[in-house]
Amino acid sequence: MAKFVVIGERISVTAKVVNEAFNARNPEPILKRAKEQLDAGATYLDVNIGPSESDGVEKMQWAVKLLQGEFNNVPLALDTSNIAAIEAGIAVYDRSFGKPMVNSADAAGRIGYVDVAAANDAICIALCNGEGIAANNDERMMYLQTLLERGMMGGMDPMDIWFDPLFVVIKGMQDKQMDVLGFIKDISDMGLNSTGGLSNNSNGMPKNIRPIMDSAMVAMCMMQGLTSAIANPCDLRLMETIKSCDVIKNNTLFADSYLEL
Amino acid sequence: MAKFVVIGERISVTAKVVNEAFNARNPEPILKRAKEQLDAGATYLDVNIGPSESDGVEKMQWAVKLLQGEFNNVPLALDTSNIAAIEAGIAVYDRSFGKPMVNSADAAGRIGYVDVAAANDAICIALCNGEGIAANNDERMMYLQTLLERGMMGGMDPMDIWFDPLFVVIKGMQDKQMDVLGFIKDISDMGLNSTGGLSNNSNGMPKNIRPIMDSAMVAMCMMQGLTSAIANPCDLRLMETIKSCDVIKNNTLFADSYLEL
Repeated sequence: MAKFVVIGERISVTAKVVNEAFNARNPEPILKRAKEQLDAGATYLDVNIGPSESDGVEKMQWAVKLLQGEFNNVPLALDTSNIAAIEAGIAVYDRSFGKPMVNSADAAGRIGYVDVAAANDAICIALCNGEGIAANNDERMMYLQTLLERGMMGGMDPMDIWFDPLFVVIKGMQDKQMDVLGFIKDISDMGLNSTGGLSNNSNGMPKNIRPIMDSAMVAMCMMQGLTSAIANPCDLRLMETIKSCDVIKNNTLFADSYLEL
Repeated sequence: MAKFVVIGERISVTAKVVNEAFNARNPEPILKRAKEQLDAGATYLDVNIGPSESDGVEKMQWAVKLLQGEFNNVPLALDTSNIAAIEAGIAVYDRSFGKPMVNSADAAGRIGYVDVAAANDAICIALCNGEGIAANNDERMMYLQTLLERGMMGGMDPMDIWFDPLFVVIKGMQDKQMDVLGFIKDISDMGLNSTGGLSNNSNGMPKNIRPIMDSAMVAMCMMQGLTSAIANPCDLRLMETIKSCDVIKNNTLFADSYLEL
């Protein structure tokens, strides 16, 4: 099996400093976060520019060229509700180290994101949701089938659709966690790839607890066959856990120095 | 589902200080390790007196009375190759907070330990091994069946046989880890209890790595349905992980203070 893929989540307009940097086209804060995440073990970097309705095209192209120029054509996930900005980002994207990732489709209003990925030979993150959160795994599977068919109709390799089960918050939905974990196994049993915003599970918990809960969760997810997560690679405990699970799963060879690699 | 059961492993003659304390009938070092483990969240304490061929009977009775007297009849796992010492320990054991545990049977030379557990209404830890380590999960399942039948013939409740898949060392048997994890799921799918010496997996690794690897392993095991481990409860990271997995599995209710409980 392939090594687990961490998509670094820290270049996002949800952080005020990043939002300001995007608006001012100020490279420093963005490059700083990119370097931190790559040093910590991220494979892909997510580039979340928010809605960016008026200037998304130019902003995404600026970000793609900036990040790939500085970091040896690092592979990127392009993340915005402005679909034209994603297409524009792909137009200037270098594929040397991985296809561009379209973040993200769902089985309702955002199903067109699958078509954009198909038309551009990109990877598509596909949320197994319709309108609102899926009530159970039968619904999740229905949405997965919809997304899978749409991609295959467009000529995509099924392995290029990375299905997101949607992680839900423990504070409020504690009794749904095993459903999510069960669905990850369903995806894995179909031989498909999976990813998702892992830290949703610990939303609202005290800051010191979140790395502990996220680490426990990622190990359980990797047991179930999760192949990737959109996560914070600067969370040391999380990365140590991911590397350890990759050893246990025989995805990487053990060496006493495996945590430093 | 019930909360995960930690059987504290630190009262063992494999530690020189404990061995000397047992031989000198010196309570202090034993009570100290007992208190540390109970404070850290152990449910059961393992009492490993080694072979103790000549004085095992008297030694085990001394230890059972000492520990249960000092710690409100704490439940104990009686661990020795001297089977008469286990029977003697059970004879003076108080069951207020749990049946005594017989540690451990296997499907070969130690199958008689099942009979002792059956005759004394005790829990039996049952290693799914014959002569030598099981080569694969088919063999493990054959040994499990042998042990299960033996216990049921003796009138045991199947839930009182806690099956041990035998954790194997990553350094040397890295490619066997998923077999062990798969077998834990087999045990769980049969509705049976499981336990084992979890930290075997990290034997020979640098000291700073072991808690990291053990924590990743325990989370994967709990995903597979492991119901208990013989482990070091003074490993803070391990206990944090176990408590977090119990929350994710909805075995315990989340509260911001759950790590302190």
